[in-house]
Amino acid sequence: MSDFSETGTIPSADALTRIAGLIRRTPVMRSDSLNRRTGLDLVFKCEHLQKTGSFKFRGASFAVSRLAADSTGVATHSSGNHGAALAAAATARGLSADVVMPSNAVSAKVEAVRAYGGRVHFCEPDQASRERGLAELVEAGRTAIPPYDHDDIITGQGTVAVEFLAQEPRLDDLVAPIGGGGLLSGIALAASRQAPHLRVLGAEPERADDAARSLSAGERVTNHRPDTIADGLRALIGSRNFSILRAHGIEVLTVSEAEIVDAMRQIWQHLKQAIEPSAAVPLAAILRHKERFQQRRIGVVLSGGNMAFDELLSHLERRS
Amino acid sequence: MSDFSETGTIPSADALTRIAGLIRRTPVMRSDSLNRRTGLDLVFKCEHLQKTGSFKFRGASFAVSRLAADSTGVATHSSGNHGAALAAAATARGLSADVVMPSNAVSAKVEAVRAYGGRVHFCEPDQASRERGLAELVEAGRTAIPPYDHDDIITGQGTVAVEFLAQEPRLDDLVAPIGGGGLLSGIALAASRQAPHLRVLGAEPERADDAARSLSAGERVTNHRPDTIADGLRALIGSRNFSILRAHGIEVLTVSEAEIVDAMRQIWQHLKQAIEPSAAVPLAAILRHKERFQQRRIGVVLSGGNMAFDELLSHLERRS
Repeated sequence: MSDFSETGTIPSADALTRIAGLIRRTPVMRSDSLNRRTGLDLVFKCEHLQKTGSFKFRGASFAVSRLAADSTGVATHSSGNHGAALAAAATARGLSADVVMPSNAVSAKVEAVRAYGGRVHFCEPDQASRERGLAELVEAGRTAIPPYDHDDIITGQGTVAVEFLAQEPRLDDLVAPIGGGGLLSGIALAASRQAPHLRVLGAEPERADDAARSLSAGERVTNHRPDTIADGLRALIGSRNFSILRAHGIEVLTVSEAEIVDAMRQIWQHLKQAIEPSAAVPLAAILRHKERFQQRRIGVVLSGGNMAFDELLSHLERRS
Repeated sequence: MSDFSETGTIPSADALTRIAGLIRRTPVMRSDSLNRRTGLDLVFKCEHLQKTGSFKFRGASFAVSRLAADSTGVATHSSGNHGAALAAAATARGLSADVVMPSNAVSAKVEAVRAYGGRVHFCEPDQASRERGLAELVEAGRTAIPPYDHDDIITGQGTVAVEFLAQEPRLDDLVAPIGGGGLLSGIALAASRQAPHLRVLGAEPERADDAARSLSAGERVTNHRPDTIADGLRALIGSRNFSILRAHGIEVLTVSEAEIVDAMRQIWQHLKQAIEPSAAVPLAAILRHKERFQQRRIGVVLSGGNMAFDELLSHLERRS
């Protein structure tokens, strides 16, 4: 893996050319009723309709496309969307994908990794066990592809901005959620190259506000005890990701749990889209800071749609 | 209102030309993972993304477009999607819309009618009161536009088939839910005109199986006590609608409540779309009768997406 060097990184526009045949060009949506109700001009980029149900498939596809021809396969540890995305990307290239998952992982996530052709290796549910499991796979010849703190992953996630700008050239803002920071740092790099006028903003839960605190402190915080329904945003911001956000002066807005839930309600009601809580965080931030978004065309990344439906279902069943 | 006469009806293709600037040309979606999992070739027509959140806006728009120039406004009684659709269609033409609603109507439905510019008149929650309320509005000069048993409504709903066939010319089947029958009879008429090879099928809950029983008996049944989560399909099949389905030999498949819920799960998981239970009934019927859909391209109408999110939300809030 090359060291991070911003000038040496492949532009996301080139990455998009490379993976265009692999990923889905996801649609953009707007809702007249939501725009009327909020007085805003909102445009949504539907990455929950990306293959494997999240933007993670972009970074995974680009990282896999950059592997040496004699690569035997990839490996990662994951309890979330990156594992399934990497499995699907590797399988599409005919490579094996080994995913270390904690023994208490949600069964739907385990099934997703397997459904996309990945091999699951269970470990104890702690960070040391996950890293040990991954190290063993690397010793056996697999290439490790981490979820966000990785040049190619960052570049790959940045393709969402390139594609969004091609679909909606007149965006003034682009708001994306931040967990580990792969998506937001990729967007920041892509925007600085091809749309310097664009204001890029991050959004994260107050209860997982490590990115906001890190940027405010000028260094990555280490005290991080995430406790939010936005399960995709519980990761600690990565080292490369922090450096990029800092270098580009990206601001991160925080929101409450209630605001996340209200934003999910709006997206459900007005867009009829089934998103995961993490994907509602940007709209929550925009609605909290409406005064900062007046008279602007606001791009919002709906980052993923992988949420267990069973709780809703059992609820409906009880009513019938 | 003219008497029903099939040959005298305007083709839905012409109706679509007339309302094309008013309605949304809704997208079609497919899911590779759902097709792999089911072994079927399914294509979904996204009428839950239609304006007002259901196909009802098609019929309402066409019916309103056919009103005399000196019309003062429209009226209906409704506890569901037709009221909001008619309000939006009338408002778009600058006409008033009066909607008689039972005093126990779901508040979200009442709000929807008002949000689209309709005036709500509450009545006692029984059929006689609803009809009396509507009669008073007609005496005051409003034109009554009922939800399904009406030529223009049927023709307008049929535009969904015309549009779907333009987007997916090679459909072998088209499966739609049936409540009062406006959608299914409109599709049957449109298909007979322009795609006689197409197999049109209806789908309804076992617990609201008046259409299946009526077609089987050769006359409209009158004993009808619907008890299903598919709230949009609780209506008794209309007289015109029954005649059309019978004349065209349309078959109606029935499904259990558990099958409806499972189909909702599949659409949520694979398509990431938020639909109302009624919209899941066709997929439920297809999955129940898989053997009848092998090697065919199956068009499925996702009829609407108006479901209260609050129960899911309260559930999520409890977890956080």
